[in-house]
Amino acid sequence: MTPEFSLIDRYFKRPTPAGARAVLGIGDDCALIRTPPGFEMAISTDTLVAGTHFFADADAEKLGHKALAVNLSDLAAMGATPRYLTLSLTLPNIDEAWLAAFSRGFFALADAEQIELIGGDTTRGPLSMTLTVFGEVEAGRALRREGAQAGDDIWVSGTLGGAALALMHLQGRIVLAARPLAVAEARLHQPMARTQLGMALLGIASAAIDISDGLVADLGHICERSQLSASIDSAALPMSPALLGARADVRQICALSGGDDYELCFTAPAARRADIEALAASLSLPLTRIGKMSAADAGAFTVKVFDEKRQEVSLASTGYDQFASTA
Amino acid sequence: MTPEFSLIDRYFKRPTPAGARAVLGIGDDCALIRTPPGFEMAISTDTLVAGTHFFADADAEKLGHKALAVNLSDLAAMGATPRYLTLSLTLPNIDEAWLAAFSRGFFALADAEQIELIGGDTTRGPLSMTLTVFGEVEAGRALRREGAQAGDDIWVSGTLGGAALALMHLQGRIVLAARPLAVAEARLHQPMARTQLGMALLGIASAAIDISDGLVADLGHICERSQLSASIDSAALPMSPALLGARADVRQICALSGGDDYELCFTAPAARRADIEALAASLSLPLTRIGKMSAADAGAFTVKVFDEKRQEVSLASTGYDQFASTA
Repeated sequence: MTPEFSLIDRYFKRPTPAGARAVLGIGDDCALIRTPPGFEMAISTDTLVAGTHFFADADAEKLGHKALAVNLSDLAAMGATPRYLTLSLTLPNIDEAWLAAFSRGFFALADAEQIELIGGDTTRGPLSMTLTVFGEVEAGRALRREGAQAGDDIWVSGTLGGAALALMHLQGRIVLAARPLAVAEARLHQPMARTQLGMALLGIASAAIDISDGLVADLGHICERSQLSASIDSAALPMSPALLGARADVRQICALSGGDDYELCFTAPAARRADIEALAASLSLPLTRIGKMSAADAGAFTVKVFDEKRQEVSLASTGYDQFASTA
Repeated sequence: MTPEFSLIDRYFKRPTPAGARAVLGIGDDCALIRTPPGFEMAISTDTLVAGTHFFADADAEKLGHKALAVNLSDLAAMGATPRYLTLSLTLPNIDEAWLAAFSRGFFALADAEQIELIGGDTTRGPLSMTLTVFGEVEAGRALRREGAQAGDDIWVSGTLGGAALALMHLQGRIVLAARPLAVAEARLHQPMARTQLGMALLGIASAAIDISDGLVADLGHICERSQLSASIDSAALPMSPALLGARADVRQICALSGGDDYELCFTAPAARRADIEALAASLSLPLTRIGKMSAADAGAFTVKVFDEKRQEVSLASTGYDQFASTA
């Protein structure tokens, strides 16, 4: 028996849960799954690398949670119901305490979201993990980036900027007091995918995306794919409570350009405002109208931000650029 | 636009090919696929890491081929028809020549196997890649490891030991002449998945696995899952032509314990011998009967190897152990 098998068996193979749906899970050359008639499978993959996406000494339990949450967020952005995932883990060595903690954080979220681990790979190398997640969505109903229409409202879930604020503190660029730091760090290390919201937006939203690279950058993808422009009212942005005491420039950078919040940004016709407000109430999740989609700006699909005086805000940085230092 | 998007767009996004089946490919939060009624989706994921699975300075075009081939091999082992894949690439920096060569090797094989890239992720970090492949197989017909029966023949496709021999040479443990080296290196760097064979074995083979960790180790997985033992006739093993001039101990280690050949090992009732021989002829691929499955050996699911004098061969190493140095 090779270590690959014993590692997966020991930390990631569990008795088949009661609600298990996979035809065949871990333990063969492939897993086997069926998709119910009339449904499509939504698939997304994301890699997290030590030193790029997290610190090498990051808390393993939180990392197990986060690696899954950021992938679930992509399913949420399509309105898909989480079903299955594979986990490929690359480890510099076999650290049993680390593996136990990682799998604890991972399975706590997997069980809460009822997503089933059906396969994986454990290899030796610099610490990183790649997850591929599978969700079901009724055929033809998935929320795509390309569906926005001119005149649609732009909405965002929850609050923005908390994760970016925590990162600025950890990088030594600002110093936070204990209380805002705790709020901000929870957003950075323990993001929650907006699964229920995504599913509820089917038939209501015209387009959606999750905010992983920053609001302006991610809304920009909706603009490109829908061939429209967007204008945001900066005074309307739902700021993270952690940002309340921060400097104005820090607030703006974090809320507009900060990644890692994993909220959903979506567009919807003005006629659906009451539905969306009802949804916010039923999910106990703030949903805030922050702007409007419009015809493309002289052929460019741009995102413009305006302050309370209707002046355009200049955006120095519009998103997280992990290759920036080599560009 | 973040570099993640521009890298995928530039090197991995192509015009939708004529035979494309995905409902939605690269460019949204998720890809969307449908599975035809009566079919299951077979899914496998494998990571290749520089320094563990390949040398950091490995030829990028060959690496693009190999990363896909080793994943396709898992689909072949289930008898699935390749359909879709995702590719997560972690790169230390943006090296355009490397990316162009990698994608050339990758797409040459993807096009030959008619498998469609539907998503991916490009991240910064130590060189590695994780692929997740999807294949279709008629519901209930996939080749599983657990289906072998006592009395079944054990078969292996192609030839064994070439890849391991090349690796021994590259590690400086042996010195090969130019000609056997070329044969052996082709097996190591340019493996071919036995896709057509796997699909043709549906309804014929009782169990199958691909040989990635070595014949004895991988056949051992069939034994464990089928709760049987296996005996192999070492004189029957189809040796790689590269091994012809090698020492007897090197031949034995490479053929029995050498990984990376990506041939299929499968079991089938003796009544199917003629079908399998006909298949070998129609595929122009040697299929060699190398032993027999038997009842478990006092509760242990073991693989035993016998020489031409019916003496049991002792197996010092039964598989590739990438964590061995830390065990």
